[in-house]
Amino acid sequence: MAVDRNVLETFENRFPNRDYEIKHTCHEFTSVCPKTGQPDFGTIHFRYTANEKCVELKSLKLYMQQYRHEGIFYENVTNSIMDDLVAVLKPRWAEIKAEFTVRGGFSSIITVEYFDDAAKVLG
Amino acid sequence: MAVDRNVLETFENRFPNRDYEIKHTCHEFTSVCPKTGQPDFGTIHFRYTANEKCVELKSLKLYMQQYRHEGIFYENVTNSIMDDLVAVLKPRWAEIKAEFTVRGGFSSIITVEYFDDAAKVLG
Amino acid sequence: MAVDRNVLETFENRFPNRDYEIKHTCHEFTSVCPKTGQPDFGTIHFRYTANEKCVELKSLKLYMQQYRHEGIFYENVTNSIMDDLVAVLKPRWAEIKAEFTVRGGFSSIITVEYFDDAAKVLG
Amino acid sequence: MAVDRNVLETFENRFPNRDYEIKHTCHEFTSVCPKTGQPDFGTIHFRYTANEKCVELKSLKLYMQQYRHEGIFYENVTNSIMDDLVAVLKPRWAEIKAEFTVRGGFSSIITVEYFDDAAKVLG
Amino acid sequence: MAVDRNVLETFENRFPNRDYEIKHTCHEFTSVCPKTGQPDFGTIHFRYTANEKCVELKSLKLYMQQYRHEGIFYENVTNSIMDDLVAVLKPRWAEIKAEFTVRGGFSSIITVEYFDDAAKVLG
Amino acid sequence: MAVDRNVLETFENRFPNRDYEIKHTCHEFTSVCPKTGQPDFGTIHFRYTANEKCVELKSLKLYMQQYRHEGIFYENVTNSIMDDLVAVLKPRWAEIKAEFTVRGGFSSIITVEYFDDAAKVLG
Amino acid sequence: MAVDRNVLETFENRFPNRDYEIKHTCHEFTSVCPKTGQPDFGTIHFRYTANEKCVELKSLKLYMQQYRHEGIFYENVTNSIMDDLVAVLKPRWAEIKAEFTVRGGFSSIITVEYFDDAAKVLG
Amino acid sequence: MAVDRNVLETFENRFPNRDYEIKHTCHEFTSVCPKTGQPDFGTIHFRYTANEKCVELKSLKLYMQQYRHEGIFYENVTNSIMDDLVAVLKPRWAEIKAEFTVRGGFSSIITVEYFDDAAKVLG
Amino acid sequence: MAVDRNVLETFENRFPNRDYEIKHTCHEFTSVCPKTGQPDFGTIHFRYTANEKCVELKSLKLYMQQYRHEGIFYENVTNSIMDDLVAVLKPRWAEIKAEFTVRGGFSSIITVEYFDDAAKVLG
Amino acid sequence: MAVDRNVLETFENRFPNRDYEIKHTCHEFTSVCPKTGQPDFGTIHFRYTANEKCVELKSLKLYMQQYRHEGIFYENVTNSIMDDLVAVLKPRWAEIKAEFTVRGGFSSIITVEYFDDAAKVLG
Repeated sequence: MAVDRNVLETFENRFPNRDYEIKHTCHEFTSVCPKTGQPDFGTIHFRYTANEKCVELKSLKLYMQQYRHEGIFYENVTNSIMDDLVAVLKPRWAEIKAEFTVRGGFSSIITVEYFDDAAKVLG
Repeated sequence: MAVDRNVLETFENRFPNRDYEIKHTCHEFTSVCPKTGQPDFGTIHFRYTANEKCVELKSLKLYMQQYRHEGIFYENVTNSIMDDLVAVLKPRWAEIKAEFTVRGGFSSIITVEYFDDAAKVLG
Repeated sequence: MAVDRNVLETFENRFPNRDYEIKHTCHEFTSVCPKTGQPDFGTIHFRYTANEKCVELKSLKLYMQQYRHEGIFYENVTNSIMDDLVAVLKPRWAEIKAEFTVRGGFSSIITVEYFDDAAKVLG
Repeated sequence: MAVDRNVLETFENRFPNRDYEIKHTCHEFTSVCPKTGQPDFGTIHFRYTANEKCVELKSLKLYMQQYRHEGIFYENVTNSIMDDLVAVLKPRWAEIKAEFTVRGGFSSIITVEYFDDAAKVLG
Repeated sequence: MAVDRNVLETFENRFPNRDYEIKHTCHEFTSVCPKTGQPDFGTIHFRYTANEKCVELKSLKLYMQQYRHEGIFYENVTNSIMDDLVAVLKPRWAEIKAEFTVRGGFSSIITVEYFDDAAKVLG
Repeated sequence: MAVDRNVLETFENRFPNRDYEIKHTCHEFTSVCPKTGQPDFGTIHFRYTANEKCVELKSLKLYMQQYRHEGIFYENVTNSIMDDLVAVLKPRWAEIKAEFTVRGGFSSIITVEYFDDAAKVLG
Repeated sequence: MAVDRNVLETFENRFPNRDYEIKHTCHEFTSVCPKTGQPDFGTIHFRYTANEKCVELKSLKLYMQQYRHEGIFYENVTNSIMDDLVAVLKPRWAEIKAEFTVRGGFSSIITVEYFDDAAKVLG
Repeated sequence: MAVDRNVLETFENRFPNRDYEIKHTCHEFTSVCPKTGQPDFGTIHFRYTANEKCVELKSLKLYMQQYRHEGIFYENVTNSIMDDLVAVLKPRWAEIKAEFTVRGGFSSIITVEYFDDAAKVLG
Repeated sequence: MAVDRNVLETFENRFPNRDYEIKHTCHEFTSVCPKTGQPDFGTIHFRYTANEKCVELKSLKLYMQQYRHEGIFYENVTNSIMDDLVAVLKPRWAEIKAEFTVRGGFSSIITVEYFDDAAKVLG
Repeated sequence: MAVDRNVLETFENRFPNRDYEIKHTCHEFTSVCPKTGQPDFGTIHFRYTANEKCVELKSLKLYMQQYRHEGIFYENVTNSIMDDLVAVLKPRWAEIKAEFTVRGGFSSIITVEYFDDAAKVLG
């Protein structure tokens, strides 16, 4: 696949003894429908509790821009982003919520959650 | 009944080891009131956690369009859609929420939930 | 009292083995304040899980219109509607939420809930 | 007709040398449909530029409450209110805008304007 | 064409000496795209100043429901409704504003206005 | 203190065997800042489950108007209202939520909850 | 009357050769109803084009707070504020729009405009 | 430039004797900033009064998608779209309003209008 | 004054024969109150019709950031920005609308307009 | 670091035997991005349950204004504010929710929660 998770950069979590939630919302996501070749548009919400690393915001933007030319279904793009985020950040907890705009009178939202059972998680 | 569940097509859930929620919202539902013959209008929200199959979105649209000429009550249409969805997808969990527009100063919302007790469900 | 619960008609719940929620919202409720004789206005939300019977929507409208000439306090009208609904439907669970418009700078909401302890209720 | 315009009371306009606009909005209007006997609901906006008299607000409320038991069409109720207001206030300019709630999927707004050609009107 | 303007009924304008605006909004319009066969959905606003006749609201609803099975483009449906309204009502002034829902990321609004130059029109 | 809780009047709870929630919202609260002498403004939400008595709404309005000339801090006014309400009503449960408008770029909300451990409370 | 216009302070308009609009909105106005003794609440919008003087904002706040204990009708308070503003500022143009909250199901808006015919006004 | 106006298709205006307004809104516009190479996002509103031709909506979508890979400034993209629309449609009147999302705390809207002085235009 | 208009950069208007409107909105303006030393916050809307030059957006951002440490009144900051914009761009028409947040219960909006009488302006 | 927590002043919690929630929202937060030197903007929500001390609101404003010249990342500013609040107030429970505006198409929210395990906390 053309999307490279190595684009994602991290910085050290300076507060590892405290569980806290970080949320980044990408308001301008676009990919391509693999069936019709038509562009898809959406809003992607990232929420996570960091373990040792936090994602650097500008690198997250560049990572997401790679999907601009990528043909991929709603369910798959959401799960793939989660796989990449978990591989790079190893968070205690994470959720990706992807909201896609109306196509043929239907809108869609895919929500994927991840737990690191070995880690303490914010109540 | 004239509504045929075989119109619904599925594709393989590529992430079967992860519980995640898929939501599709049909903003343009219309059926016919069996009592008065007048058209009804509504918004139908589908939420489910896939087991082995996901519903293909265009086929869901065509399935829903069959109700355009169908005389059926609010409570029954919501439960019938759930029956068809469960029969075709066999999801781990599902919810149908049907919001109908104002008639005689009253609006209505019917919410049906389904659990497959044998399956693991997203927390 | 001039409000007659026999106006309420029911139809058979065709899905008695499934707990599901039915919500009807009356956007145009009006009664009379017993103290001042002035009209009161509000929005009444009905939510219930049917046992054997569902309420027929047009009869619910006619039932509610009886309060147009009825002098009755907020707390009492909400509880009386619940009493009538329970007597006629014998639901597994029900909630009446009555929102009244501003009088003297105050608005009011009365919420009454009913459980049939003998019945299974939607989780 | 049962609606009596003599219920309307006035007080002296203390600023007759200045054109200014007075707007009162009745958020809780209800009348009866003469065809079906069903209640109608709406919001009525009064705007006028006073000549010698202003309408007293409580008397306007009592005047409007007379329509609670009156069978009358949308177009007629709006024009009748205007006739009564003009007869009692003799304003320099007036507008009645009556917004009625949804019936059968249609909502309606009737707007009637009045000019006293002999009077100076606010620019 | 299958849409019959004779379904429209009128009643006498009781206030012919006063120019006033009547607005009816159909919140639940649906027709069929002649190219794809897919249903279209929209909201249609009617505004007019009556001459001798007003349109009866229930007949307007039945007239609009005829488009449910009609294959017709946005621009044409809006102009056709105007032609029918003018033929039946002969209003002093009229405007039809048709708002259609999103298709392929585009929404559309068609606005048609009509003037009877021989008639006096509300300022 | 100049605020007198004896202004509060009560009426009998006619449904003591049923737990239900009563909410009154005062949209027009004003008091005085004891430090600056400047007026404060807010919205006060009362929610409670009655035991034997309900608060009469007009007396609640008069009680609240006493704060118009009272110098008192946000935290104290919210707790004092709760103390007075509990003393007069002896409710099974109560919550006061006081929302104050922006001062120096900050808005504030104080929320106080009360439980009568000896009483049954609505689930 | 107890309201003193001398509380209003002004500062020099540094841009007298340019017509521009200044708008101040008082979100927290309160006065007293002279008939019932009950408090009234509203939002007051001031718009004006300065001639030689601008109103100092803190003094405008203190001026408005004087109405807190003043019994005065909607129409009169709006015109009186305009009289005071014109006397102190001598603006090229001014408008006061006073929006009052709901009383007995009615809300009210009074709008007063002032032109200094001898002055140039912003197009 | 890589954007080809020949992608735009037209159909005959069936109502050439009537001035009416057609509005299409593209909710999912994206182009590329020529300076930074970063993607831009916006909403583009087209309004026009047709002469002999109307634009076919699907071809307008394909035309707009060509900007997905185009490096072009806000002011230029708006004027270029207008140039192409005028060349292909020769409308009586047209307006393009392009709203771009926030960059560095600034959002932008460019509005271009076109008149064909030789043509009659909707009042 | 510490604010330097030379920070503003321009680029050539490529469509000088067409009047069109450019609007930039700065959502994150902050300056300092010269009286209290407290920070002020606001939203500044720029609208103009270019003559030969357009303002470069990033330089506009840097120009506006200079006010972060500047003590200046609402009326003066709005007029000063207009003076700088006119000096640098020499537009055909321009408007600055500055909306400031609530202070002591008052919000303010200052609107300044500029016309170059020698230039043709968009209708 | 230049931010001094000693600016924060407290007053005695007069209701220490009752758990209640205090929420202050700073609508006008601004700091500086340590990477780019560009200003950041946000809204900061403080919620806490007091033990023996409450924070004085004006001192909280002055404390927050210190960040105006401070270069600090989103995650760090939120945790630092929590550290300072806990050190000064020793609350039973606290939450800081910091919402930052859009940068490069992304907005961010950081939420930090604190529990004093030795203290009783509001249910």
